[in-house]
Amino acid sequence: MKEGAEAGQSGAVRLSALGRRAERPTIARLMNLALERRDVLSLAAGFTDSATLPMKEVREAVDLLASGLVGAEWLQYGMNQGRPELRQLLARRLAKGEPEIGAIGEMASRILVTNGSQQALYLAVQVLCDPGDIVLVDRPSYFVFLEMLSGLGVEARSIPTDGAGRIDQAALEGVLDRMALRGEMSRLKAVYFVSYFSNPSSRSLAEKEKNELAAALRGRGCLPAVIEDAAYRELYFESPHGARSVLTLPAWEDFPRLYLSTMTKSFATGMKLGFGYCTDALWLEKMLAVKGHHDFGTSNMAQAVAERVISNGTFDRHLSKMRTVYRRKMEALDEALETQGLRGLGWKWVRPKGGLYLWLRGPGGLATGLDSAFCRACLDHGVIYVPGELCFGDDAPVNDVRLSFGVLGEAELAEAARRFVSAARSMGAPGAGGGQATIG
Amino acid sequence: MKEGAEAGQSGAVRLSALGRRAERPTIARLMNLALERRDVLSLAAGFTDSATLPMKEVREAVDLLASGLVGAEWLQYGMNQGRPELRQLLARRLAKGEPEIGAIGEMASRILVTNGSQQALYLAVQVLCDPGDIVLVDRPSYFVFLEMLSGLGVEARSIPTDGAGRIDQAALEGVLDRMALRGEMSRLKAVYFVSYFSNPSSRSLAEKEKNELAAALRGRGCLPAVIEDAAYRELYFESPHGARSVLTLPAWEDFPRLYLSTMTKSFATGMKLGFGYCTDALWLEKMLAVKGHHDFGTSNMAQAVAERVISNGTFDRHLSKMRTVYRRKMEALDEALETQGLRGLGWKWVRPKGGLYLWLRGPGGLATGLDSAFCRACLDHGVIYVPGELCFGDDAPVNDVRLSFGVLGEAELAEAARRFVSAARSMGAPGAGGGQATIG
Repeated sequence: MKEGAEAGQSGAVRLSALGRRAERPTIARLMNLALERRDVLSLAAGFTDSATLPMKEVREAVDLLASGLVGAEWLQYGMNQGRPELRQLLARRLAKGEPEIGAIGEMASRILVTNGSQQALYLAVQVLCDPGDIVLVDRPSYFVFLEMLSGLGVEARSIPTDGAGRIDQAALEGVLDRMALRGEMSRLKAVYFVSYFSNPSSRSLAEKEKNELAAALRGRGCLPAVIEDAAYRELYFESPHGARSVLTLPAWEDFPRLYLSTMTKSFATGMKLGFGYCTDALWLEKMLAVKGHHDFGTSNMAQAVAERVISNGTFDRHLSKMRTVYRRKMEALDEALETQGLRGLGWKWVRPKGGLYLWLRGPGGLATGLDSAFCRACLDHGVIYVPGELCFGDDAPVNDVRLSFGVLGEAELAEAARRFVSAARSMGAPGAGGGQATIG
Repeated sequence: MKEGAEAGQSGAVRLSALGRRAERPTIARLMNLALERRDVLSLAAGFTDSATLPMKEVREAVDLLASGLVGAEWLQYGMNQGRPELRQLLARRLAKGEPEIGAIGEMASRILVTNGSQQALYLAVQVLCDPGDIVLVDRPSYFVFLEMLSGLGVEARSIPTDGAGRIDQAALEGVLDRMALRGEMSRLKAVYFVSYFSNPSSRSLAEKEKNELAAALRGRGCLPAVIEDAAYRELYFESPHGARSVLTLPAWEDFPRLYLSTMTKSFATGMKLGFGYCTDALWLEKMLAVKGHHDFGTSNMAQAVAERVISNGTFDRHLSKMRTVYRRKMEALDEALETQGLRGLGWKWVRPKGGLYLWLRGPGGLATGLDSAFCRACLDHGVIYVPGELCFGDDAPVNDVRLSFGVLGEAELAEAARRFVSAARSMGAPGAGGGQATIG
């Protein structure tokens, strides 16, 4: 017994490689910023509309569940893969948009329910990628996914796009050729894209773009796993985007595919429920195995509530209402930015047809990063945003900005726009922030 | 464009090292077994009592939340670390048992809320351990944790125990000496134990045992991270176990410590809420960073419900009721096993003072594993259990069994006991299953 003999030694924790790499996500920094500065209007986080959160709908679901008519098992542990009835309902909703996917029962067996679609992303990459592996990502892409890749030691490579944000087929061929020349193709494990009303760009991928992407990969004998993130697919303003998903596009048939969606974004973020539909039995089995280690099943209570509101039509009625709410909020933000004269200051953007975001390009040379003068100016004016440079796998332009119209009301959005344009105006004439050169 | 040119190639998914290692957890197999065979009574999974699930309590909480008096933010995204008010409440409950831990505000800042305490275990090991690293575990230990370690490529080594299940100090010194000789101490990253009414043994660790464990490590200049899993601490039958936790025992002061507890086991498993209290700022920061990648925050709705039921006393009233319920159910199972004559068949066990489990040792040489004749006999008799051999980091005895009295009612427990003893009797006289030799 030598207790105390080594009292001088350090009790510092020794981290794994993953632990050393892990950095606090930017989203947490932005949220803390918003919490510390109550005077600030946040156009940053992709929160959903506060005024229309479905309190009544959730209460009704819980009242029914608590009536005892359906038993008490919703407060018991559930299945690791997710409630069978909920998976059936999700399969049916999925098949409504694309009936040719398959039989409902078989579809339900390919679905895993997760803690938001974020956990499905994590599981998918965990079982596919070792540190040093490569994932092809859309440009721009979902910044929380990019930070997750970085935390797992995985490299993101952008799928090149043209000036209008479309996949640039010729440039893509060049990227893949260079990867092949460098012997990197064996490390290319997955392709990821947010294909409908994207976070952050609000663009949707045309079938032609998806098909050309598949062809470029297949043409090089490369069939990596594909992750199609369709979190915003149902949040269209007027009509659904026409493109089929990788689940039914023939060009993707031979690829292992994971299609992601969510009940979080489209109903209530507080429920934290997403799901994945996986075409590859081995991939699915491995994700389920690791989910068994993460938590062996997502909150059965939240799943039971989702089951109720989907089966009785509440979910779709709410969604239908939200399409109008978000369209109006988008218009409020968009019109306020126009009216305040942001375009005159050299800013450009396209009015979105769905989703929760406006994606803006500032004047060439105006840096918008978290440590930039513009970001400080915005904070001084009482408004925050997500810097666009976080949304790129590589070769990030410095002058993009993501604005979310998800959480604030129309009047607040107009005020936030006024503050944002004031901050932009305070930076001086177009190009004055760092010369006329367009970066990116 | 060479679409279709390589149609013959394989679309098989290529897995990461972690993906290749990951195996479907046994708990999922056991749950499926129970679902497929509706005639089977399950003494396997550690589900909680079905008859007393707090439906009314959860409904009242949701009704209040949905009244709008407290806003709608409970259906919005919450903080990655967990709701501040909930963390305050958890800190206060923790300090009730051990007032000397610290000031409530500071305590709350050290708490992270997770998807069951399982996710806290996963995060803790993810940021500490690389494949090939070693974790010291209690003997027997929580089998889902052991399978998780194996999925992460981490080696479990048992803390030796004597015939009564107490930590065997001399044998422990020997284990550590051999590890030092083999140059393994640098790979020893953590120590894990379920210290109160353990899963699976229902034993609690005495302060003396905890102190001697700390001394043995410190005496070798070794201060690994310590994970104390206190999931069952509050589920005592008559009175709390007297031992202090590693949070206040002076012997552990210099070690980085993570203390785990849960709202899942003690209230409703369907809520899937646990938490960790971490004394080490860097360890906590890294777990939070990785949690940001997993899901950037546990269901805010479930947390808000927990906040309500804890703050208005419902949680503690329910817990108080459950202590009696579980004591009675333990007695029902224990007495039925006694009455049916299981001891006469060479089985031994100690009546627990808390928790959800009876831990039995079968006659020497009787294998109880999932593929054993005894396990098949139990299934034939309509009862399932958790094989004890799953609960050991190494050198597993083959003849242990974990029985949970969590989910079934008293009458069902008596019937399950009858079936279990019949199955045991069908194996023949003590020792007939494979000779008299005691294994393990």
